Amino acid sequence: MYVIVNAAASADGKLSSRRREQIAISGADDFARVDRLRAESDAVAVGVGTVLADDPHLTVKDDELRAQRREDSRPANPARVVVDSSGRTPTDAAILDDAATTYLCLSEAAPVDRRMELAEEAELVTAGDDRVDLLRAFAALQEQGIEQLMVEGGGELIFSLFEAGLVDELRVFVGPTIIGGRDAPTLADGEGFVAKFPALDLEAVDRLDDGVVLTWRVDDR
Amino acid sequence: MYVIVNAAASADGKLSSRRREQIAISGADDFARVDRLRAESDAVAVGVGTVLADDPHLTVKDDELRAQRREDSRPANPARVVVDSSGRTPTDAAILDDAATTYLCLSEAAPVDRRMELAEEAELVTAGDDRVDLLRAFAALQEQGIEQLMVEGGGELIFSLFEAGLVDELRVFVGPTIIGGRDAPTLADGEGFVAKFPALDLEAVDRLDDGVVLTWRVDDR
Repeated sequence: MYVIVNAAASADGKLSSRRREQIAISGADDFARVDRLRAESDAVAVGVGTVLADDPHLTVKDDELRAQRREDSRPANPARVVVDSSGRTPTDAAILDDAATTYLCLSEAAPVDRRMELAEEAELVTAGDDRVDLLRAFAALQEQGIEQLMVEGGGELIFSLFEAGLVDELRVFVGPTIIGGRDAPTLADGEGFVAKFPALDLEAVDRLDDGVVLTWRVDDR
Repeated sequence: MYVIVNAAASADGKLSSRRREQIAISGADDFARVDRLRAESDAVAVGVGTVLADDPHLTVKDDELRAQRREDSRPANPARVVVDSSGRTPTDAAILDDAATTYLCLSEAAPVDRRMELAEEAELVTAGDDRVDLLRAFAALQEQGIEQLMVEGGGELIFSLFEAGLVDELRVFVGPTIIGGRDAPTLADGEGFVAKFPALDLEAVDRLDDGVVLTWRVDDR
């Protein structure tokens, strides 16, 4: 599986304000870039924090891109993946609608009654005791035919993926604003590394909208 | 006064790890760029947190740059500025040595005995009750002939300067590594903005070492 993390961050590395409200960091051209990346991916993943904060739909917005996918004998939208250790995804979340298949990655810590409710709305992938075992969960997704997985955040999931060595590529739109805040969500939160920091190779630098897209490949050496 | 904030951040916007240990984010070419920027500035400023964590010297490292400054009838090194509301700078800090003039910006909250100790090592600028009033302190620095001020961090001071509307330019070396950590210092910490986010104009994008330098001008419109 090839995992591409994609995010828009302020010039100071924040994904949103300390209130976790979405902020317009990029513009129309970046929006189109993200839509194309979704359309070429087999699945789009987010953490449950992002579901609870933003209730994203994660579908392809452009009609032609969806039509092209159908012509290629693919579903109109990529599958959706939520990493949700304790099963907190609301049953009425937009990500659970009928627009695409949704996989919920749970751990054994998700209550049984929640699992039963969620099993009616999504495909459940259970791996790990207290937290989702990402290696096992992603192996299960690959068995379902997911070869390119796009990850759209948030910072907790992104950090966990780097920690697990699962990220192949990082694409960041760096936007023309300062958000600030020692408690604001950043591109990679979690506990943080204190040694063995993941090394990246800068593959491309592209100005877009009023910012710049940095494309990094994870250096596995 | 023209204020240039300069920093090196990881691809996820961190200045150091959650342990606040310095991490090699950039390389020799960026080091030389920073040294040139110091050499062209009248003063270099940091917050007291940076003094306590890193004990920086903030002098110009390149002999030729220092010689050039002397030829231009300037001191070999730019002045140094510490923003230190409660007077916590140790009297044996490297920044208080004889290599350059040092201004300590204090508030009225700094204990009188500390002020007396520090007055023997540095020029004191006192402005503000509990925290340094940056507008007044910087006006006092300008009266001392400081026309270009370079700010080298940390994230608390940088946020405060954006909040006070004092930043003219932001130069960020974005380096090829992930640091992560919800508690790791970022480029702009503090309380964070929740509205009226400072807007930037992307003036230059320059690949350097294994990363990229983004030069932003603060948009005052």
